[in-house]
Amino acid sequence: MAKKSPESILVVGAGYVGLATAVFLANKGCRVHVVDKNPEVAKGVSTGKLHFKEAELANRLRAVVRSGILTASLPSKEFYHSAGFIVIAIDSVDHANWKMRLKSFRKMAEWIGERKRPATVILKSTNILGFAEYFKSILDKSELGRKINLVVSPEFLREGFAYEDSAKPWRVIVGANSREESLATRKLYIDLYGADMPLVETSYRGAELIKLASNLYLSHRLAFVHEIADYASQYHLDLDSLRQGIGLDPRIGLGYFNPGLGFGGSCLPKDLNLINSRQLGSRFTFHTAETALVINDRVLDHVIKRLRGAIGTLRRKHIAILGCAFKGEVDDTRGSRAVKLAVRLRRHGAVVGIHEPFLPDGAVIFDGAETMVSRDMKSVLRGASAIVIGTSHRQFAKLKGETARKLVKTRFVCDPFRILPRESWEKAGFIFV
Amino acid sequence: MAKKSPESILVVGAGYVGLATAVFLANKGCRVHVVDKNPEVAKGVSTGKLHFKEAELANRLRAVVRSGILTASLPSKEFYHSAGFIVIAIDSVDHANWKMRLKSFRKMAEWIGERKRPATVILKSTNILGFAEYFKSILDKSELGRKINLVVSPEFLREGFAYEDSAKPWRVIVGANSREESLATRKLYIDLYGADMPLVETSYRGAELIKLASNLYLSHRLAFVHEIADYASQYHLDLDSLRQGIGLDPRIGLGYFNPGLGFGGSCLPKDLNLINSRQLGSRFTFHTAETALVINDRVLDHVIKRLRGAIGTLRRKHIAILGCAFKGEVDDTRGSRAVKLAVRLRRHGAVVGIHEPFLPDGAVIFDGAETMVSRDMKSVLRGASAIVIGTSHRQFAKLKGETARKLVKTRFVCDPFRILPRESWEKAGFIFV
Repeated sequence: MAKKSPESILVVGAGYVGLATAVFLANKGCRVHVVDKNPEVAKGVSTGKLHFKEAELANRLRAVVRSGILTASLPSKEFYHSAGFIVIAIDSVDHANWKMRLKSFRKMAEWIGERKRPATVILKSTNILGFAEYFKSILDKSELGRKINLVVSPEFLREGFAYEDSAKPWRVIVGANSREESLATRKLYIDLYGADMPLVETSYRGAELIKLASNLYLSHRLAFVHEIADYASQYHLDLDSLRQGIGLDPRIGLGYFNPGLGFGGSCLPKDLNLINSRQLGSRFTFHTAETALVINDRVLDHVIKRLRGAIGTLRRKHIAILGCAFKGEVDDTRGSRAVKLAVRLRRHGAVVGIHEPFLPDGAVIFDGAETMVSRDMKSVLRGASAIVIGTSHRQFAKLKGETARKLVKTRFVCDPFRILPRESWEKAGFIFV
Repeated sequence: MAKKSPESILVVGAGYVGLATAVFLANKGCRVHVVDKNPEVAKGVSTGKLHFKEAELANRLRAVVRSGILTASLPSKEFYHSAGFIVIAIDSVDHANWKMRLKSFRKMAEWIGERKRPATVILKSTNILGFAEYFKSILDKSELGRKINLVVSPEFLREGFAYEDSAKPWRVIVGANSREESLATRKLYIDLYGADMPLVETSYRGAELIKLASNLYLSHRLAFVHEIADYASQYHLDLDSLRQGIGLDPRIGLGYFNPGLGFGGSCLPKDLNLINSRQLGSRFTFHTAETALVINDRVLDHVIKRLRGAIGTLRRKHIAILGCAFKGEVDDTRGSRAVKLAVRLRRHGAVVGIHEPFLPDGAVIFDGAETMVSRDMKSVLRGASAIVIGTSHRQFAKLKGETARKLVKTRFVCDPFRILPRESWEKAGFIFV
C-alpha cells in the first residue's frame, strides 16, 4: 500500500482465518496486532511460529514477524481502543452444542464501546443469521457505539490454501446496513485486492447467509456424491464413469465429486447446524441442511455394515484406520470422520488402531472418546481383520497391498476415498468391501 | 455419413426425445422410420409437421421428410423386424402414479424377439434403475433374443433446444453389460458425433443412474435456490447479490440459479420419483430426491401464504396467473407449476384466470382439474385482486405496471421469477408480495 501512516489493524483470534487474514494484511503493508486468549498460541505467533500445518502461511508469518509489522499478544483492552480496524476471527461457536459464544462477543462489544474515536469492526467469524444485527444493537448501547461501523465480511478459505485463498479470494463480501458503514472497508479492500476485485455488496444478513449457504451447497453436493457412491458400491458400478456421465453437464461439473467418509472438518457440519440455529429466534428451516446431515451420518453406518458383511461380528476384531486428519494433506483432526468412525467401531466392540502420518506419535484426539494415533503404519496394520482408509492423504495412493498382506490377519480393505491402487491390492489377495 | 447403404433405424415414439433423435439421425444420412401409437401425431410427422413448439427441430423435420429419408406411421411388427437399430423413446412412465409402462415394453420385446436377424436396441426413454436388466431378461426368453444387443443411452435434451442438444450433446452415454453388445452403437456414434465425442461407457444400471442422478442433482440445486429465495423474500434480501456471493465459488457456479414456482415439466419430478421406484424391487433410497420434492412442494404453499398475507382470504378473489407453460419460451404445460398453483388457489375458493401467450385461446389443461387459458391478457387481469407470474416468458420482462393498474381491483403482484421490471410496477402503485 506504501502509505505514510499504514492502517493499524487488530485481528482477534489466531486460528486459520485470523492468522491468514493477519499475515495477508501485514504483507500488504498494514500494521497488524493479533490477539489470542490461548497464551501458547499468542506466544508462538509473536515469535513467528505457526501452530498448524500450512506451508505458505508459515513462511509468510515468519517474514512479517521478523520485519516487526505483525505483533501478537494476549487480548487486552488497549488494543481494542487504538486500532482503526478490528477484525473478529475468533472461533465463534461451541462445537459441543453448536451455540454461538455470545458472551465473548458481548465482552468485545463492551471494550469496543469504551473507545474514544470511531472504528470499523469487520466480522470474519461465521455467525448465525441475524447475529450482526444483534451485535450492532449491543454496540449501539455504549457511548460511542453508534459511531462504530460494523461490516460482515466472511472468509471462505480452504485449509491447505489458507494464505492463497485470503490473498486471492473467489469473492469479497461486504455486508453492511448502510453505504456509509461500509465505506472504510471498501476502501481498505480496494487497496488490498484492487478495484477489479469480485466485490459483492449486501446487508449484514445477506453476508451471513452467503457464508452459510455456500457451505450448505457444498455439503449437499457431497451428500449427493455419497449417495451415488453408496449406490455404486452396492451394485458394483464404476464410480468414475458415473462421475463423468453426471458431471459432464456443465451445470453440474466434474469437480468436488470425491466420496469418502462424509464431510467433516470444522466448517461444513458447523455451518449446517448454524443455518438452522434457533438461538436468536429464527424459525426458518433449511431442509437441505437437515438432509445433508442425515445422509452424512449414514455414510459411517454403511462402512460399518460393509465391514460386518465381510468379517462378521466386530467384537474384539482389530480394525486399522489409515489417516484421521479431516481431509487429505492437512494435520487438522477437528470434526474428523475417521475419528467418528473409530468411536462407532469401538461401540461395536472393535479394537481400533489409527495411523496418521501428519501427527506426532502418540498424539491423542478427543471426539467422544480418547483416541491415540501412531506414525508407525506397520504397528497399526499388524493383526488387523480389516483396513479402512480414513483420509485421502496423497501418500496412500502409493501404498502396496504386498506390504500390508504380511501384516494383517484377514485381507479385507475398505477404501471409501477410492485412493488405493486397487489392482495391486487385489493382486495381493485383498477383497474390497 | 455418406455410406453406400445407410443405416436403417426405427425410432419408437415421436415425442421430444424420439423426434429430436430421429431428425438428427436422418440429417446425418440414416434412413429413419418413426412410429407413434397416436394416429394424429404419426400422420403429422409423416407430412413433416411438428406437434410442439421447437423452431430448429421443426425446420429440420420438414426437410428430412421432404427428402424422403425420414418416414413415419403407426407402429407395426414389420418395422421391428427390418431395422438394424431400434431406438426406444416412448413415454415410458404413467404420470398419474409414476409407474413404468412395463406392458408396452413387454409387447415390444415380443415383436423384437420374432426377428430373423440380430439388431441393436437403444433405450433412450428414462427408466427405473434395473429396468434394462429386466428388459434384457425378457428379450433373452425369445428365440433370437440373446442375439439382440441392448444399450442404454439416455438423452439429456432441454426443451427449447431439443435439436441442438441432440446434435451436440454434453456427453454421450453408452451403457451395456459387455463390450460386444455396445460395439455397433459405438460405431454409429462415432459416425454421428466424431471420434472425439464426450463418450462415457458404463453398464446398463450405470447409464440408468447417470440419467436419473443428473436430474436429481439439478432438482436439488433448484430446491436449494428456492430455499434461498424463500429466505430472501422473508427478510427482504436482494437475491442477485446472494446469487453472486454464493455462486462466485466456481465449485457452485452462477448458472442455473433462477427461482420461480419450483421445478416442473415432464422430467425432473418424474425422475425424482423414478430414482426411488420400488417397482422392480429396489430398496435403496435417495434421500436427496425426497427432500427436493418436499421443498418443491412447499414453494407453492409459500406463494399462497404471501397472497393471503396481502389480500386476506382468497374466497371469491380473482387471481390472474400470467404464463402456465412449464418453463419460459415453450408451449409445453406438462407438469406446469402454474397449473398446480391454480388448482391449490381454487381449493382456497379463489377464481383463477390464466393467460398463456403460447397456447391457442381457450385451450384446456388438465392437471387435477380443468383449466382454461386465454391469450388475451387484459381479460385475465380485469378485476384481479392479485397477479402471479406463472412462467418466465421473456415477454413478461416488458410488461408495464401502468397497463395493469387500470385493469386490476387491488395492486398486489407476486413474481417468484423476478422477471417483471420492478421499479415500473412499484411506480404504478403495485406492492410485491
